[in-house]
Amino acid sequence: MSDLLWQKPGVKVDARIQAFLAGEDVILDREFFLFDIEASRAHAEGLQLIGILAADELDGIRRELTTLADDYRAGRFVLDERFEDGHSAIESRLIERLGDAGRRIHTGRSRNDQILVATRLWLKDRLSRVVALCRESAGIALQRAEVEKLLPLPGYTHLQRAVVSSAGMWWAAWAEGFIDDALRAQQTLAWIDANPLGSAAGYGVNLPLARDHTTQALGFGRLQVSAAYAQLSRGKFEMAAIEALSSALLDLRRLAWDLSLFTSAEFGFVALPSEYTTGSSIMPNKRNPDVIELMRATYSAAAAARTEIEQLLSLPSGYHRDLQFSKGAIFHAFGRGLGALELLPDLLRNLEWKPEAMRAALDPSMYATDLAVDLAREGMPFRDAYRQAADPARWAQGDPQVSLAARVSPGAAADLRLDALRARLEALG
Amino acid sequence: MSDLLWQKPGVKVDARIQAFLAGEDVILDREFFLFDIEASRAHAEGLQLIGILAADELDGIRRELTTLADDYRAGRFVLDERFEDGHSAIESRLIERLGDAGRRIHTGRSRNDQILVATRLWLKDRLSRVVALCRESAGIALQRAEVEKLLPLPGYTHLQRAVVSSAGMWWAAWAEGFIDDALRAQQTLAWIDANPLGSAAGYGVNLPLARDHTTQALGFGRLQVSAAYAQLSRGKFEMAAIEALSSALLDLRRLAWDLSLFTSAEFGFVALPSEYTTGSSIMPNKRNPDVIELMRATYSAAAAARTEIEQLLSLPSGYHRDLQFSKGAIFHAFGRGLGALELLPDLLRNLEWKPEAMRAALDPSMYATDLAVDLAREGMPFRDAYRQAADPARWAQGDPQVSLAARVSPGAAADLRLDALRARLEALG
Amino acid sequence: MSDLLWQKPGVKVDARIQAFLAGEDVILDREFFLFDIEASRAHAEGLQLIGILAADELDGIRRELTTLADDYRAGRFVLDERFEDGHSAIESRLIERLGDAGRRIHTGRSRNDQILVATRLWLKDRLSRVVALCRESAGIALQRAEVEKLLPLPGYTHLQRAVVSSAGMWWAAWAEGFIDDALRAQQTLAWIDANPLGSAAGYGVNLPLARDHTTQALGFGRLQVSAAYAQLSRGKFEMAAIEALSSALLDLRRLAWDLSLFTSAEFGFVALPSEYTTGSSIMPNKRNPDVIELMRATYSAAAAARTEIEQLLSLPSGYHRDLQFSKGAIFHAFGRGLGALELLPDLLRNLEWKPEAMRAALDPSMYATDLAVDLAREGMPFRDAYRQAADPARWAQGDPQVSLAARVSPGAAADLRLDALRARLEALG
Amino acid sequence: MSDLLWQKPGVKVDARIQAFLAGEDVILDREFFLFDIEASRAHAEGLQLIGILAADELDGIRRELTTLADDYRAGRFVLDERFEDGHSAIESRLIERLGDAGRRIHTGRSRNDQILVATRLWLKDRLSRVVALCRESAGIALQRAEVEKLLPLPGYTHLQRAVVSSAGMWWAAWAEGFIDDALRAQQTLAWIDANPLGSAAGYGVNLPLARDHTTQALGFGRLQVSAAYAQLSRGKFEMAAIEALSSALLDLRRLAWDLSLFTSAEFGFVALPSEYTTGSSIMPNKRNPDVIELMRATYSAAAAARTEIEQLLSLPSGYHRDLQFSKGAIFHAFGRGLGALELLPDLLRNLEWKPEAMRAALDPSMYATDLAVDLAREGMPFRDAYRQAADPARWAQGDPQVSLAARVSPGAAADLRLDALRARLEALG
Repeated sequence: MSDLLWQKPGVKVDARIQAFLAGEDVILDREFFLFDIEASRAHAEGLQLIGILAADELDGIRRELTTLADDYRAGRFVLDERFEDGHSAIESRLIERLGDAGRRIHTGRSRNDQILVATRLWLKDRLSRVVALCRESAGIALQRAEVEKLLPLPGYTHLQRAVVSSAGMWWAAWAEGFIDDALRAQQTLAWIDANPLGSAAGYGVNLPLARDHTTQALGFGRLQVSAAYAQLSRGKFEMAAIEALSSALLDLRRLAWDLSLFTSAEFGFVALPSEYTTGSSIMPNKRNPDVIELMRATYSAAAAARTEIEQLLSLPSGYHRDLQFSKGAIFHAFGRGLGALELLPDLLRNLEWKPEAMRAALDPSMYATDLAVDLAREGMPFRDAYRQAADPARWAQGDPQVSLAARVSPGAAADLRLDALRARLEALG
Repeated sequence: MSDLLWQKPGVKVDARIQAFLAGEDVILDREFFLFDIEASRAHAEGLQLIGILAADELDGIRRELTTLADDYRAGRFVLDERFEDGHSAIESRLIERLGDAGRRIHTGRSRNDQILVATRLWLKDRLSRVVALCRESAGIALQRAEVEKLLPLPGYTHLQRAVVSSAGMWWAAWAEGFIDDALRAQQTLAWIDANPLGSAAGYGVNLPLARDHTTQALGFGRLQVSAAYAQLSRGKFEMAAIEALSSALLDLRRLAWDLSLFTSAEFGFVALPSEYTTGSSIMPNKRNPDVIELMRATYSAAAAARTEIEQLLSLPSGYHRDLQFSKGAIFHAFGRGLGALELLPDLLRNLEWKPEAMRAALDPSMYATDLAVDLAREGMPFRDAYRQAADPARWAQGDPQVSLAARVSPGAAADLRLDALRARLEALG
Repeated sequence: MSDLLWQKPGVKVDARIQAFLAGEDVILDREFFLFDIEASRAHAEGLQLIGILAADELDGIRRELTTLADDYRAGRFVLDERFEDGHSAIESRLIERLGDAGRRIHTGRSRNDQILVATRLWLKDRLSRVVALCRESAGIALQRAEVEKLLPLPGYTHLQRAVVSSAGMWWAAWAEGFIDDALRAQQTLAWIDANPLGSAAGYGVNLPLARDHTTQALGFGRLQVSAAYAQLSRGKFEMAAIEALSSALLDLRRLAWDLSLFTSAEFGFVALPSEYTTGSSIMPNKRNPDVIELMRATYSAAAAARTEIEQLLSLPSGYHRDLQFSKGAIFHAFGRGLGALELLPDLLRNLEWKPEAMRAALDPSMYATDLAVDLAREGMPFRDAYRQAADPARWAQGDPQVSLAARVSPGAAADLRLDALRARLEALG
Repeated sequence: MSDLLWQKPGVKVDARIQAFLAGEDVILDREFFLFDIEASRAHAEGLQLIGILAADELDGIRRELTTLADDYRAGRFVLDERFEDGHSAIESRLIERLGDAGRRIHTGRSRNDQILVATRLWLKDRLSRVVALCRESAGIALQRAEVEKLLPLPGYTHLQRAVVSSAGMWWAAWAEGFIDDALRAQQTLAWIDANPLGSAAGYGVNLPLARDHTTQALGFGRLQVSAAYAQLSRGKFEMAAIEALSSALLDLRRLAWDLSLFTSAEFGFVALPSEYTTGSSIMPNKRNPDVIELMRATYSAAAAARTEIEQLLSLPSGYHRDLQFSKGAIFHAFGRGLGALELLPDLLRNLEWKPEAMRAALDPSMYATDLAVDLAREGMPFRDAYRQAADPARWAQGDPQVSLAARVSPGAAADLRLDALRARLEALG
């Protein structure tokens, strides 16, 4: 590793301890690196505005940061164990190329606010992807709800056959779910959209840092005002972002459960294109819906990440090294989570119903509730109607189409109110 | 227990199994009971609008629901193990008092949407209390930040003395934190503010239920459109509400940690009024800040509640009895959480600083960063200035007032920008 | 509330704060009360051995403790909000009845070790119930495995039909699982079987307390030696106990999942006696396997309890009031957990297979693996045999009995090795 | 990627989906690779015993597995994305080098039992390291407890000064804690020490696999009998292993908290060698105890791993692809956990007390409990003695040495009973 920024004479360094401290930190910083460069540019601009950097020094820094970003993207610059972390790598590069101008870049800045701002930009980027993927999924679900409005599907509670339902009702549920999830991610994005750069180590500095400039230059919605709160928001904002992601993954988990059942031989309601399945190393007959299962399992990564961070945050205010471990947690959650969500729109587009199997699973008992309500509509108190309709002798095979056409309560098959959902989807922007 | 609503001839009932199924359900339903009554009134109004109830039947139901609520509040009606649950208790009462009108109340309704709507109203109520308590706490913190703007307080990172800070910076941090928490609770409240009543068992019914009426009558912001999604939102919305609460409790945990340290003999920065302390059964000398410790511990109840619900939600869509256990979880989280938050405003008002101890903990090393930045402002590259300022020979006891007056970066002691925080606080409404 | 033991002149008490501090503590202490009385008796005996109590004082204390326990069991003594907690209630009663002898009972004892020892005895009792219930369940599973050894049952992986399995293989799996769970609970019981009484507030006292006597009198396996470690084990031992319980509940969750599927119309492999099912408030046709679902959901209570405690335990050594919240957590976990496990043996005894449905679900593809292995046995390299057996043209309806009879790998249908399992079950004692 | 083992004609493969399915699986398999090779050797031996492999085929397989392991260790064979997973890599290599003998290796084996056995061997290895590190740490703590038996250290409860304690009592606490942790890891190791190889895909095979041979060859304590239970133990055993690790990390978290406070300027009881500290990028004066903080934070990785796995395990019995995600979780927990534990023995050896600061923190109130007990020993009822000793007028600066010498309750300073702890440490083997 190159020299440590903060190294002093007389202080011993132990290789095993350094390895423990570093962990995989510099590797993780790759995720943040371009955001760190972007924030360094804004910080340098701010330093020039308050006279710490000369105009030509700023020019040099901007140029070298652009080059570094280009080199990084092209693989000409590799962020690896030669550096303590991504922050040191940027500063070292500027010093190497620019001398004193590089030695000025860290004026009024701490790695504490540097990591905060890079994380914040990263989280905003990832949440905007969650928004986009949930919107796309909701849009597909809405289209299919419209088209398959009256395709009969058995409706279950307790995994027991309950009443006739429809593919349209099933799709509308996921549409509304993913609209909510997109909205949750948007709310969360707005909630964390505050600039922590310029808070230094949590106590500010004796310089009139141009924080309003960096706020605007980096596209933040507002300044995160308090220098000490910037530190307190570490982990807290990460958890909120994970929660927003989790909201979508929770729906994905239940959707995947439905598909896991529906693709079993016993239900047999859904066929998946073969590319969504894999085989077995020992059983030649198997085609398994592994994609569905890993989608279902993805929630656990987000839950783990949340646990990991919240366990860290039983601390007094101020920075503590414990917080470093929040980095890997968000990469794990969003890496897995976005990986699964990215496959969702195509899966929703491509899954095929098997109408005959669906219809075959509709048995006479599933019309009993219709009957009870019919009796109630005709004037019998519902509690009496219920008792009459509970008699299996009164059950008869019905026509699912008729049952669905009569399901006129708002949000049910005959009045899905897709327009209302479409309006909410469009309102997401 | 009274007869079970759904009981059929020939079905055996086993007392041990019934006890397991019931759990403490009916006791928990006390929390929801008034909301359940309110929702039952709106449902009855809707039934009258679509001709299921006659006008005089509705009048009777309204009157009896009002009486039941009054009796419940006055302790004349006790919800206990005589009933399967709160829902059955309401229906039984109406049948007992009104006969057939009572037997009609459940038309087009399931206990599934009944519990959904009662929970939703309860969560909205509790979140609005979180908003109010966070706003009040933020307001107090803002006032004290203004008054104690330049009262020197040691600033720590890694629990090591770092730089001079101020009580004002400390208060501003919590002000901004609780403003964010209030906003998060508001966002969440808006997000869940959707009416599930009228979704029946998740598949709607063959009646044109007046869902727009109940939405408006119960004060919901919108209809939760899809009947199937109403079921999918069970647990999901509870978790979001717990997360909003957790955001406040997370800040409370860290605030309590600060106070736990600050009230130790070793730090000695804060004195708590004696009513916040308790004694020991064996050590006659002790006065312990138990209130602070239980505030710190409160986060764990919310974390537990979240875990409890998310563990339940690995299920296919549709109702499953597993979801019943989400009830106790939200009571636990909000019971403990609001209990702690309710004591917070007074605690913030009443805690007293001990300025001499705070000043005594400011040692010469804590001015080294000021020095490095001063050198940088005068033209020395920061990385060189840092090295010079790292020499203990250059450290000298400084004047904390001077240090704070020079801390002009936005959000630091000399430029706290409390106006910006005040504006956000007022924007909360 | 009666006077607080530790109350001093001049210290203010605030009712709201006291309510927050007390929480439901004294109600929770009901769970511990008899154990606390038992430990108080042992402590008193120890005090007499070292000359703090006279022989007649000890006699009085023993008598009054017995009376208190009897009164408590009979409902003549109610532990309620009149007392700060169960510990104070015992001491108050002794003082009230015995005067100075009662005022001596707390010599050399703190509520800290008092709660530790009561909790430890309670946990040992609850773990021994887990052991017993797991053993009983394993025993039933073993019996049914023997009887239903060759009853064909479809075997699934990924919820897709895989190979022919048998009821015997299914039962043997749960038998081995619950044997392991019983063993885990036994290991854990042994691990926590250490006496913390006599550690006072974590630092011992200036008295030669007769800890070896209390260890023996209370039936502990060993002394928990270090006074300071006794405090550190608070929460740690609770978590271990919850983990042991969770091991059983995890298996129960998966067993309940199987039964939830098997009792669906689509699988239809299992019939549950009607007392295990409930009806719906709106759907007259429903019989739902609620017991199964709540068994499945029970794991979440244990997970929540674990989360609650581990969130508390980010603390320096020594007692902190935060630890009080670990009490409710263990009651929640074991209350729910034992409630579910107690119903398990009868459920296992009573569930009925539906052999025709099971047989009907065995399709030709499920013999392909047998075929591949047959080819391999005859000399064809397995990888080639696999490819041949993957050709649907080679699949044919087989005889499940023949398939099972050939499944001779140890632990499979034709060689279940139930004797080995029986030996492990018996070795549990 | 090389061809997929299970690939069939006509089945489409989608690169994005394959990438999602693969995840970082093959990279993770590096952890298991040598264990997988070891288990493959035992499996091959078993196949030869039942006549599937000829003696010379077995020789070839053994030789090539040895070569592969050597190549892997030496970096000549790299396990990377060319392979679907580690299992396929081994089989491909054998086929490439040995032809038909290689094509026979997978006879009677599934990747399901292959991953089970490799994981089991890995977990046993890691748990044995936990045992060793806890034993070593306990041994050092015991030694220092003996040496520093009567070095006065303030004793705290609620972070408030309570009574005089000693370094000896502090060390003895950690000694007993780490002995318990070593024992827990040993118990857990014994509990999971069962051979799953030969269970195939959870239903065994139509071959008399030599499972007793592989059990013995791989050094397992027993056969995991039931083929179906082998699958059910996936995740369950991983969680038990993580729990055992967590027990040690929980103590480490609290130990690190003590050291975090003790190394603060305010407490000042402990000095850490400089190699355990790092500097700040902006504050030239800082030396931060980062090692301590990361040790404290390590618990969170184990908690996250446990959450990740338990969220996965809400599944029916049988293999599901969800379980794949349990792999990364155990690597994360043990990677971080062992990393921290490996630094612990040296840290315990090297930390230095600052006796003057410790003594300076002992104030007169800390002798009040001694006084109360003294009065009680002389005959005054403790409750009265407590009241007298609560009067600050009676407090006086005492001699900590005298206080410690009188602390004769077993497990306290004057009777630490280190022999009993030493005996338990030695009994660990």
